[in-house]
Amino acid sequence: MTPRTTFISRGGSQVTEADATFLELARLAGLYLPSLCGGRGKCAKCCCHPRGPVTDPSPLETELLSRDELAGGVRLACQARPLGEVEVALEEEILEKGGYTEVAVTPEPPVEKAFLELPLPAPHDDLSDLERIRQTLGRPLWAAPPVLRGLPAALRDAGFRATVAIWDHGAAGEELLAVEGGDTRGRAYGIAFDVGTTSVVGYLIDLFTGREIARSSRLNGQQPWGADVISRATHALEAPRGVADLQAAAIGTLNRIIADCCGTVDPREVYYVTVVGNSLMHHLALGITPATIVVSPYVAVSRDPLQVKATELGIALPNAWVYFLPLIGAYVGADTLAVIMATDLDESDEIRLAVDIGTNGEMALGSRGRILACSAPAGPAFEGAEIQHGMRAAVGAIDRVRIQEDVRIWTIGDVPPRGICGSGLIDALDQMVRRGIVDPGGRLLPRPKLDGKIPPKVLERVVGQDHSWEFVLSWDPRVVITQDDVRQLQLAKGTILCGVRILMEELKIDTTQIASVSLAGAFGNYVDKRSALGIGMLPAAIPMDRIQGVGNAAGQGSRMALLSRTIRRRAETLARKVDYFELSKHPSFEDVFIESLAFPHPPTRGD
Amino acid sequence: MTPRTTFISRGGSQVTEADATFLELARLAGLYLPSLCGGRGKCAKCCCHPRGPVTDPSPLETELLSRDELAGGVRLACQARPLGEVEVALEEEILEKGGYTEVAVTPEPPVEKAFLELPLPAPHDDLSDLERIRQTLGRPLWAAPPVLRGLPAALRDAGFRATVAIWDHGAAGEELLAVEGGDTRGRAYGIAFDVGTTSVVGYLIDLFTGREIARSSRLNGQQPWGADVISRATHALEAPRGVADLQAAAIGTLNRIIADCCGTVDPREVYYVTVVGNSLMHHLALGITPATIVVSPYVAVSRDPLQVKATELGIALPNAWVYFLPLIGAYVGADTLAVIMATDLDESDEIRLAVDIGTNGEMALGSRGRILACSAPAGPAFEGAEIQHGMRAAVGAIDRVRIQEDVRIWTIGDVPPRGICGSGLIDALDQMVRRGIVDPGGRLLPRPKLDGKIPPKVLERVVGQDHSWEFVLSWDPRVVITQDDVRQLQLAKGTILCGVRILMEELKIDTTQIASVSLAGAFGNYVDKRSALGIGMLPAAIPMDRIQGVGNAAGQGSRMALLSRTIRRRAETLARKVDYFELSKHPSFEDVFIESLAFPHPPTRGD
Repeated sequence: MTPRTTFISRGGSQVTEADATFLELARLAGLYLPSLCGGRGKCAKCCCHPRGPVTDPSPLETELLSRDELAGGVRLACQARPLGEVEVALEEEILEKGGYTEVAVTPEPPVEKAFLELPLPAPHDDLSDLERIRQTLGRPLWAAPPVLRGLPAALRDAGFRATVAIWDHGAAGEELLAVEGGDTRGRAYGIAFDVGTTSVVGYLIDLFTGREIARSSRLNGQQPWGADVISRATHALEAPRGVADLQAAAIGTLNRIIADCCGTVDPREVYYVTVVGNSLMHHLALGITPATIVVSPYVAVSRDPLQVKATELGIALPNAWVYFLPLIGAYVGADTLAVIMATDLDESDEIRLAVDIGTNGEMALGSRGRILACSAPAGPAFEGAEIQHGMRAAVGAIDRVRIQEDVRIWTIGDVPPRGICGSGLIDALDQMVRRGIVDPGGRLLPRPKLDGKIPPKVLERVVGQDHSWEFVLSWDPRVVITQDDVRQLQLAKGTILCGVRILMEELKIDTTQIASVSLAGAFGNYVDKRSALGIGMLPAAIPMDRIQGVGNAAGQGSRMALLSRTIRRRAETLARKVDYFELSKHPSFEDVFIESLAFPHPPTRGD
Repeated sequence: MTPRTTFISRGGSQVTEADATFLELARLAGLYLPSLCGGRGKCAKCCCHPRGPVTDPSPLETELLSRDELAGGVRLACQARPLGEVEVALEEEILEKGGYTEVAVTPEPPVEKAFLELPLPAPHDDLSDLERIRQTLGRPLWAAPPVLRGLPAALRDAGFRATVAIWDHGAAGEELLAVEGGDTRGRAYGIAFDVGTTSVVGYLIDLFTGREIARSSRLNGQQPWGADVISRATHALEAPRGVADLQAAAIGTLNRIIADCCGTVDPREVYYVTVVGNSLMHHLALGITPATIVVSPYVAVSRDPLQVKATELGIALPNAWVYFLPLIGAYVGADTLAVIMATDLDESDEIRLAVDIGTNGEMALGSRGRILACSAPAGPAFEGAEIQHGMRAAVGAIDRVRIQEDVRIWTIGDVPPRGICGSGLIDALDQMVRRGIVDPGGRLLPRPKLDGKIPPKVLERVVGQDHSWEFVLSWDPRVVITQDDVRQLQLAKGTILCGVRILMEELKIDTTQIASVSLAGAFGNYVDKRSALGIGMLPAAIPMDRIQGVGNAAGQGSRMALLSRTIRRRAETLARKVDYFELSKHPSFEDVFIESLAFPHPPTRGD
């Protein structure tokens, strides 16, 4: 019998049937277990607590785990394997799919390190500790109280042989950022964050080489106050400590990600952090009320780039500066700015389109000359929210659908379906439109009207009566697409298309002039381009080969800014250069929106 | 019968018998009660809770106090009077003696204020709040998160008519320090602190005019960990949270003084703070271990001037920057630097001597050309510590003594003696030396040896036997000077004299070249110059008219730095220019110290 492992997590329980280590099984299930050594039994980060029959501890486990841990049933997921029915409780479920990408930016490390062998203090040489460093280094450093507090012990514990980390403030001089015993010149790290409404991603980067050391993704801890920005803003505005709650939750999430990433890296050697996020996440992370952002006439409190000490915000990095990339506007944030830079839109001679579909759709169109951006309130339908059987792109989600003689579905992790995620929804809708099951107006046709026009097994799946027809994707477990689901998706895709059309109208271009379309975000990575065109989410005339998924472009932009002062200056210039508007306030919005709702007519024959 | 009021405070209970308001009675008793309006019944700061028969509430009290307060017995000390036996419990006893001095410094306010009438945000004018301010002001301000957090409400509550406080960081640009609704251009305050080992003084100053608004003095909250720097350092080094304890106590004291001073002033309108203190107080207030200061080879962690946000140190001034004046060395602090500036020693063409006698004696000798400073470990005898009947200069302390046919004593507050304070001790010792009761070697002569040489009533006061003779200053209550007290004072005065002599030796000058001697600190204000010369605390050849008490010169220096950037730059230059050494490490120390211990020979006849 194949061993059967059930991973129990916040997202529900997920079952895998395979003979492999728990780490491999978790990955198979699309789940993230912290591991820094890549499963080589070195980092001891993948501790888990399997309940059920498992293999005996390996020599590596006996070495890395304490006797108490082993007696208590703690195991390394990279070593232990199930022998039968086993349950593993996970602290948090994180989907980790898509490859690691290295950013092509020449590192300009914000921090410089120097190893000093200082003369010992003596009655005839009684300079203060700080002056001693300054004298040996020969440069006029200054230091803030937190560094001074650690200075005497750092120097004396290491016999006055120490490495200094120096931060260049330009006109404001050089700051002694940290003093570390011994020679630590080789080590300097940074963390680039992308703070999304739903999830937060952090990338731990070597500031000297640009190499990614670790990454971690966590659900934004603000979830208890609603899934979307409006619920969060409502809490911020109405609860007595609303802003403080949300700030603490955001910072808490950053700190959990820092802990995830800093397995083999000392957090004291992380000197720089960059943060991108939409305007609401930006304000909340800084503890600023979003009241002005969400109430007309919609202005930010500040769109400026902002650099503050991590400790000032409660971020658990004692020596780091944190740089918040600037906002474009009250509803077009630093995340869109990061997407523009990651897709090189602002340095392109040809016109490019970038669309980042999250809870809101942000999009930018333009080139080196001029860039327009807007926020399209598509709603969360593409993330599976407000859809009868919608779910996040986690194990068990239907992510691909084909309709020919019958319906064929694929699920993440190849397990029985638990629901349907964004890419599956678009696939399903596209297929239903192509087969004429959904008409161009968005009506899910009654079974009688489809009789004889679609294969019998497909016809059977159209169930219901009157105005409440639905389409069965899976009989058991039952997963359906309802008329209402179709309407939600229609509004969402219509909003995106409307946004693209209005950007084109503003820029006075037609589709032939768009050289490329970048679909950013997890959605952009997973959606089938043919299906996206098939439902008319993008202008039909755009050739499919010009469309590409570019992954977490906002995160990429954050990483670029982390590594390079040149990029940060570029971001600051760009933020003031981009023309932005809120889609629903555009004068053409209503007309274009209604035109954009229609689905394309189905092809007359075949496909 | 004259009403009798007993003030009960940390320092003990003090009785006054007079018919006056409690505020006047407290002042009579040398006690400090907070009052900002000077007793005019306007500030309602002098609330007290007298127990016993008192006058009925005045119309002003009925107006300023709530019905509940009046019912509960709360009264304004400036209005209410005792009618019989009354007790008043005071939160803290603080001696307030000596006049207010205005500092002659041309104010260069560190903060600039501008009143702005901003255009309202609108769909076509959607700048962020910060950009709106910048645009109207026409200057490139930046702002830190705490100001951004308050910005939207500050602007909107005042209909976008607001005053901005701007801080010039020089090369690092201009900071938006605060935004205040309405026109607050006239108001900008600062607080100058002198953080002493024993007591902390704060002066609330109008930054535009230099005028003193209020002052308050409190015992340093570090008292529970010992009266002297060594006990404090021991706690810092040995207790697990020692440094944190002492920092919290120091900051707590500053915050109490801020509360005292900010009766009619909004703490949000205090933008600047200066701090002087000895090196230990400086390090502890910043949360830096004093380990390197108190252990050979005695170095500071940093002697640099330091400017930090008040909130970063827990100081209850949301918008203020705090400037710590630089230290001269590990044992010659910013307080000595302040004394040098306040006595203009560093800008004088003639050679001056400044001596600040606190728990340690710090002294500086020199002129515009060269300045030498040292710390003389005189010990706390001059503050009445380790003296049999010694006490602080509070009500009931003998502060003046004359010996002729009998002993005559004066006490602070003209009440029966409770003990003897520094100026009284020096007076008593001087008189005993003059009458030959104490010989030049410091021996309190046995009564038999004095018989016939001093008046009979004085002779009666020499009591005891063998080596334990003592001199009775007051029979009831009994206050005596013991042989051991004489030895303590001899060591203390010897250390001061030794310090002055070694400074003179180093500077290769004799007493004729010293143009003036400034005695700083409370001690310097109250000590009788003739007595100080009489016991040989200063070189005998210095003419008395060149000696002057200059009050709290360290506090004066702090006030000067608060008002003027020129003075702060002067302090920074001066700190590096002063030559300093620890007296006890000087090669001539032992020889000169032994020579300095002797008391002058008594005049052969008369006085």
